[in-house]
Amino acid sequence: MKKFSAELSEFEIDGLRESSLSQTVRVGSPALEEILYRPFHILNHGFIRVIDYMGTDASIVQAARVSYGAGTKKVQEDRGLINYLMRHRHTTPFEMCEIKMHLKMPIFVARQWVRHRTASMNEYSARYSVLSNEFYLPEISQIAWQSETNKQGKSNKRLPEDHSRKVLEILERLSTEAYKKYSHMLDDLSLTRELARTVLPLSVYTEMYWKIDLHNLMHFLTLRADSNAQYEIRCYAEVILNILEKWLPLTYEAFIDYRKDSVLLSKKCKELITRMLNGEHITREKSDLSIGEWQDFVNMFNIRPSAKAE
Amino acid sequence: MKKFSAELSEFEIDGLRESSLSQTVRVGSPALEEILYRPFHILNHGFIRVIDYMGTDASIVQAARVSYGAGTKKVQEDRGLINYLMRHRHTTPFEMCEIKMHLKMPIFVARQWVRHRTASMNEYSARYSVLSNEFYLPEISQIAWQSETNKQGKSNKRLPEDHSRKVLEILERLSTEAYKKYSHMLDDLSLTRELARTVLPLSVYTEMYWKIDLHNLMHFLTLRADSNAQYEIRCYAEVILNILEKWLPLTYEAFIDYRKDSVLLSKKCKELITRMLNGEHITREKSDLSIGEWQDFVNMFNIRPSAKAE
Amino acid sequence: MKKFSAELSEFEIDGLRESSLSQTVRVGSPALEEILYRPFHILNHGFIRVIDYMGTDASIVQAARVSYGAGTKKVQEDRGLINYLMRHRHTTPFEMCEIKMHLKMPIFVARQWVRHRTASMNEYSARYSVLSNEFYLPEISQIAWQSETNKQGKSNKRLPEDHSRKVLEILERLSTEAYKKYSHMLDDLSLTRELARTVLPLSVYTEMYWKIDLHNLMHFLTLRADSNAQYEIRCYAEVILNILEKWLPLTYEAFIDYRKDSVLLSKKCKELITRMLNGEHITREKSDLSIGEWQDFVNMFNIRPSAKAE
Amino acid sequence: MKKFSAELSEFEIDGLRESSLSQTVRVGSPALEEILYRPFHILNHGFIRVIDYMGTDASIVQAARVSYGAGTKKVQEDRGLINYLMRHRHTTPFEMCEIKMHLKMPIFVARQWVRHRTASMNEYSARYSVLSNEFYLPEISQIAWQSETNKQGKSNKRLPEDHSRKVLEILERLSTEAYKKYSHMLDDLSLTRELARTVLPLSVYTEMYWKIDLHNLMHFLTLRADSNAQYEIRCYAEVILNILEKWLPLTYEAFIDYRKDSVLLSKKCKELITRMLNGEHITREKSDLSIGEWQDFVNMFNIRPSAKAE
Repeated sequence: MKKFSAELSEFEIDGLRESSLSQTVRVGSPALEEILYRPFHILNHGFIRVIDYMGTDASIVQAARVSYGAGTKKVQEDRGLINYLMRHRHTTPFEMCEIKMHLKMPIFVARQWVRHRTASMNEYSARYSVLSNEFYLPEISQIAWQSETNKQGKSNKRLPEDHSRKVLEILERLSTEAYKKYSHMLDDLSLTRELARTVLPLSVYTEMYWKIDLHNLMHFLTLRADSNAQYEIRCYAEVILNILEKWLPLTYEAFIDYRKDSVLLSKKCKELITRMLNGEHITREKSDLSIGEWQDFVNMFNIRPSAKAE
Repeated sequence: MKKFSAELSEFEIDGLRESSLSQTVRVGSPALEEILYRPFHILNHGFIRVIDYMGTDASIVQAARVSYGAGTKKVQEDRGLINYLMRHRHTTPFEMCEIKMHLKMPIFVARQWVRHRTASMNEYSARYSVLSNEFYLPEISQIAWQSETNKQGKSNKRLPEDHSRKVLEILERLSTEAYKKYSHMLDDLSLTRELARTVLPLSVYTEMYWKIDLHNLMHFLTLRADSNAQYEIRCYAEVILNILEKWLPLTYEAFIDYRKDSVLLSKKCKELITRMLNGEHITREKSDLSIGEWQDFVNMFNIRPSAKAE
Repeated sequence: MKKFSAELSEFEIDGLRESSLSQTVRVGSPALEEILYRPFHILNHGFIRVIDYMGTDASIVQAARVSYGAGTKKVQEDRGLINYLMRHRHTTPFEMCEIKMHLKMPIFVARQWVRHRTASMNEYSARYSVLSNEFYLPEISQIAWQSETNKQGKSNKRLPEDHSRKVLEILERLSTEAYKKYSHMLDDLSLTRELARTVLPLSVYTEMYWKIDLHNLMHFLTLRADSNAQYEIRCYAEVILNILEKWLPLTYEAFIDYRKDSVLLSKKCKELITRMLNGEHITREKSDLSIGEWQDFVNMFNIRPSAKAE
Repeated sequence: MKKFSAELSEFEIDGLRESSLSQTVRVGSPALEEILYRPFHILNHGFIRVIDYMGTDASIVQAARVSYGAGTKKVQEDRGLINYLMRHRHTTPFEMCEIKMHLKMPIFVARQWVRHRTASMNEYSARYSVLSNEFYLPEISQIAWQSETNKQGKSNKRLPEDHSRKVLEILERLSTEAYKKYSHMLDDLSLTRELARTVLPLSVYTEMYWKIDLHNLMHFLTLRADSNAQYEIRCYAEVILNILEKWLPLTYEAFIDYRKDSVLLSKKCKELITRMLNGEHITREKSDLSIGEWQDFVNMFNIRPSAKAE
């Protein structure tokens, strides 16, 4: 039976890196070269491996200057220009870098991933090949209560130990059972792969090649490394953040300051701050904000009730 | 527990249509107006409902002429121009029409669907709401052997009756079991919805709003109404073909002739036909085609061995 | 000679509107229906006419709820949901509305316009037809000095009257001369249109049909109704803002508050404000901001020097 | 005055190549490395320089196999797979390669170029910098009559020598005059660059960085290396064809056979050929084709009137 196995031993990867070694006049990132092809392991069976890339911080600067000679400018000026581009949302120069990764993740994560449309993707096809017996099982520390207030997510409270054990047991038993039946229908009943796979749960792992430009990658990271993203996809996004830091240190720095950890201030909130900075005392009632907005506003700037109450 | 139910009774749809009725100076398609909001049922629980649309055949003609007055031209000329655009792959005027549908389909179909990136989509979120107890079960006539030659698909041979019965029984039992455990983890163990859903099989149904322009819709249909597409998504594509025929009769006609049922002739094949039409007798050996290509070529034009052997 | 003329008299537009009037069960915007097909005149020869549209505020709410029944919810709740979507950058529901316009603008504006890639466009072809003798001439009040500080734009200082007169005279004379030669090469020398047009200046007018979804339209407006945009494209953007207000009043309101007039606060600036709101006195030196950033920061919140100096 | 000059001497390019030389474990194309950064000159002032690239033929194969080890397969199998992908329009693996170029072209060519939306672009900004005194002047052999039959293009007939001379003289004089006034308004009247540029003709040269994936590049080439494309953009497309051949020899081969020199056969034409190959004699009257289609059909396969008339 044709099974899929794209994982390589460390030894094989060393060999692959060695045999690929060649000279190039393309710009390159020494820190990224170090980790090319090597997997970062994520969740119980997943990984991210960078397969290829194009461009460096200098490529962004180059496109912004529509000029070629990055060599004549000092790093200090490159940092300033990259910060400027990020602050003023001049996004097109960031499209000039590109990265390609080999990913392995559960299907329910892949379903969130694929919503990022401005990217290229080749996914493992379960019509053509047989899926492996690999399923996502959470760590016990990640098994939590459904939040009542945040309908989309989990609360900060872990389930009681015995509940968590039961959950894990159910997840494990159902996936084992599903894979057994999947194999049975393929091997003993000769059913089509495309139909047999429909019994597999959303926790089954899939693999893909994924290629995206830097601008869209940063958009992905803004959404998926956010605290509102589901824990599992956030694990992948955080690894990619580390990869980004190695690859494009100046862009990474600017991205964190002006995008990832920045906040969007509505017209109303901007006016509130202007009034507060000019000495006015603002309460929720005077603010013209909804309850939810006021709460977000207070949290955003650690406004102390005492300070508010004078 | 919050469950999702977007299906309306025929009575409710009649009411919705009645209450929506208004006057417009926008161009419209009377045949499409007839079926707006009404579901076409597909597979055991799926459907397609057209929710909104923009444009008619005249809008394509209008954009092609970059002019406004479609009224001054006869239908005959519109047909000729639409045929011309389709033949010569002038695709941008076809982007001027848009359609929005409400879809319900199994997740393994949705995973193929979402690969069409140039479209807008809002899918039901199983992080936010609870999925219904609805799973895809094939009709017995669609349960087939895995093809040996076409690795991606099914053969034309149905499974023996007893095998098919076993498959159905497995599909049914596993989905029932999975849904029971899903409900149990949500209701009794208070697990997060985002984690509980991972036990559900790929056959579970989901819903979405999907909006796409005509050019990209035709591309979707070319791939998904094709005999190589998986049977289940083809069922949806065929319903959309019928909708297209109602909506844009001239475009539909041109699409069938110049796109859907057209063939792409490689340079080599074009030269072969030129030689054959000019009297030359061609065999596989003389053709310079690979075995697979020659077979496709012979099938494409019903070339009879006797004719060849002459 | 085939010339292009897509402009209609008011009388003809009334006729067109009357003959198009029909019943629909699609959702519609009464305020937008009022202005359909009617031109808004911009600059000396340009215009915007809305030709078609799809969706209303309710369509956004519907997609966000992945449900169909907007009728059961009150407007107040729709407003709240649309504000929520805009604040949290849930952008996909805004893709569910679409608008199509007929535009006439100078080519140097069209070159900026076309950079918005996620849109559909059919432009008048000067290979196929002859361009009209219409060129952009600025109003005298818009003829300004090149700014020294803002390299990309104009200063606030108008040119001296005699300079402005000279500029206008040059613009007028060169375009007249160019059009004369263009006509001469076409009519007397039988030159191809595709080559003859290359003598025409960037101020010559062109026309196009342009179709875009609401999400991308708002992105367009964010960039092109901004004070950094060139004056001439801003004139178009401001008309579209008015159209948006008629079409989708709730979305327009949210767009102004959370997007157009919002500000992006970098991580550093957010921390500064937090410290200032908690009573700390901040100077540029203590701020860790660059000179440019500090200046932007001070302007953003009208921070008074006196307040700073205590 | 800040002017733009991105052109390097051969000596400077040699230096740039030398200083960029480094080791990489990325896959690379030796033939493309040879020409990196070096300009191919096009028209009177234009050029194409490849600046960076990602991927080789093996990357396409790798993505198609969703596997990593291209080394284990023979070139013969890679060729077969690439041909298969191209024949069956499996386009996503071709998105896995990327190329970035520095381009210089007249604005009327850039206006056609930018219509290819799925690409990244940073163009020289004439709001920020001053354009050079460089304008397109055709070679005398390319100055032709407007075609009567093909409304979009030029006939095969060159203009009479004296007409061509007059055309050249007009083009030259007008561009000289326009540039003189442009400089005058900038230097003597202090007019904004953004307004001054509007007097420049469409023949003025601009520069840009352009990055595109292989799938979209092939689509560009299909349209712009076609005989219906305007001569000037075709000159660029043909240089890119040569670059493609160096970069990805297997893909280039498949592209020529299955895309560029392939033909699309409508359902009707396919049926005609089937009948003809099976011995039937077909005339235009029996064909059910329009006059234009019949003419295209006859030309496509060199069907001799004598053969038709028997």
